[in-house]
Amino acid sequence: MAKDQAFVTLATNDNYARGAMVLGRSLRNHNTTRQLVVMIGTQVSQPSKEVLEKIFDEVRLVDVLDSGDTAHLALMKRPDLGITFTKLHCWALTHYSKCVFMDADTLVLQNIDELFDREELSAAPDPGWPDCFNSGVFVFKPSNETYGRLLEYCAEHGSFDGGDQGVLNGYFSNWATADISKHLPFIYNLSSIAIYTYLPAFKQYGGNAKVVHFLGETKPWSYTFDPTTQMVSGDVKEAPTQHSFLLDWWTLYSASVVPLLAEEYGDQAFDSGC
Amino acid sequence: MAKDQAFVTLATNDNYARGAMVLGRSLRNHNTTRQLVVMIGTQVSQPSKEVLEKIFDEVRLVDVLDSGDTAHLALMKRPDLGITFTKLHCWALTHYSKCVFMDADTLVLQNIDELFDREELSAAPDPGWPDCFNSGVFVFKPSNETYGRLLEYCAEHGSFDGGDQGVLNGYFSNWATADISKHLPFIYNLSSIAIYTYLPAFKQYGGNAKVVHFLGETKPWSYTFDPTTQMVSGDVKEAPTQHSFLLDWWTLYSASVVPLLAEEYGDQAFDSGC
Ligand SMILES: O=c1ccn([C@@H]2O[C@H](COP(=O)(O)OP(=O)(O)O)[C@@H](O)[C@H]2O)c(=O)[nH]1
Ligand SMILES: O=c1ccn([C@@H]2O[C@H](COP(=O)(O)OP(=O)(O)O)[C@@H](O)[C@H]2O)c(=O)[nH]1
Ligand SMILES: [Mn+2]
Ligand SMILES: [Mn+2]
Repeated sequence: MAKDQAFVTLATNDNYARGAMVLGRSLRNHNTTRQLVVMIGTQVSQPSKEVLEKIFDEVRLVDVLDSGDTAHLALMKRPDLGITFTKLHCWALTHYSKCVFMDADTLVLQNIDELFDREELSAAPDPGWPDCFNSGVFVFKPSNETYGRLLEYCAEHGSFDGGDQGVLNGYFSNWATADISKHLPFIYNLSSIAIYTYLPAFKQYGGNAKVVHFLGETKPWSYTFDPTTQMVSGDVKEAPTQHSFLLDWWTLYSASVVPLLAEEYGDQAFDSGC
Repeated sequence: MAKDQAFVTLATNDNYARGAMVLGRSLRNHNTTRQLVVMIGTQVSQPSKEVLEKIFDEVRLVDVLDSGDTAHLALMKRPDLGITFTKLHCWALTHYSKCVFMDADTLVLQNIDELFDREELSAAPDPGWPDCFNSGVFVFKPSNETYGRLLEYCAEHGSFDGGDQGVLNGYFSNWATADISKHLPFIYNLSSIAIYTYLPAFKQYGGNAKVVHFLGETKPWSYTFDPTTQMVSGDVKEAPTQHSFLLDWWTLYSASVVPLLAEEYGDQAFDSGC
């Protein structure tokens, strides 16, 4: 039953690949029964790819430039939207009947397999402009037809924010007004940002968080971590509440991902960040 | 028909009273067919009260401490929630069949009478924690029964954020998941904050704004204004986009409210802020 449903993420380089590894491990640790798929770009190194293969059921090289299809044509019109086109490629995974896309900068805190009860396009509101959904976590149905339409839309209208969120909100434009069941609770895509903008709400509801999303410029892998003292450091501007999620990320990364990376890199030097 | 429906706001002091005056004028300028009601506290000065009476159909003194009813009892249990109890008093306006509450720090940019097509409790999402509604604009149905229950809820559970928004979200707790028609589009309660958190979305959708809400510590009346140069000044931390809304507020205030205040204050000195 669950074989034709998958969690899907994307990593176009080794940094985001680390995020994907942690995300994949967090899904496994919470006993998902679904398949795990990571789409990777050509810049992902061989050792990273090997580690991803240990964690994910399917590692799929997505080279939009090479695809020779509508995606390639769309990309030629809008070369600025390269990674956006790569993300949209998830609709081409038609060997699955339903999927949940998750950004590589998300971390799962509880089993979230119930998301597969939802229909396309289900997503949580974006704090900041809450009539838009945040495209870091969404339920979708792979379909070549939808894929083609999305690419067309994207090539024609571009993206109002320069990324996939703008495109997807433009295409699925009735999300805010049509169907409440397509509004995922915010705890399925809790932006670390929301902690500061409305701390009392975070204190009230944040304890039930299922997915934390480290959106914005500073990603968990932008920091460094000392496993002995269990301290995250770097140019940390964030307040202590985010730190507990950040610590969760680094704890999982250092314990479950770094050993796999060390094995693959062997004698080659690599910077684990901790 | 429209006589039994009203826009309702609240001002417990002369500063918020200025906000209420501007709000009232903005509703009139956009040709509302509904009644305008302002609930005031005992601290509002006589001249302010006179001006409010020129703009609003009903100026209603709300003295929760004096009310001798359940509100008073509730307040004795939670003295910290004084203004919150005052706001909840809007449910006691049972001579109206339906109302739209609007914070005194909101400004209407287009006719919004269509809000009366919505049912209780309709409100727009709060940026920051978008599974909560923002309580700066909401549709409600006055009812002594609801009023009593709200006060009870408030006295028993308090407010998770110390204000009315926490109480109302606790009481109307299925807003996020139950009925999409109770989700007002964000442009009916566009927080000035949202401009910075997601500027591309503001550029895409902000042109349709119907109500701007100056939420947060700095209110329009915290600034000063030079009518000659049309410049707002003060400790202005905000970027230029908010300035156009702020300028709208001050333009309306200086042109339509200050003359009324000047008339009422007569020889008495008063600080108009411009
Ligand atoms: O250089 C990049 C940028 C983005 N992504 C993928 O696209 C997602 C969205 O980008 P990001 O999370 O950086 O955006 P944000 O959530 O901060 O808006 C990432 O999580 C990755 O899955 C990627 O693989 N490489
Ligand atoms: O001292 C006060 C504080 C608040 N209010 C009323 O309560 C509303 C909510 O407070 P505020 O707008 O300051 O909160 P924010 O929207 O910034 O969270 C105001 O707009 C006023 O209508 C008031 O009359 N006096
Ligand atoms: Mn992200
Ligand atoms: Mn307000």
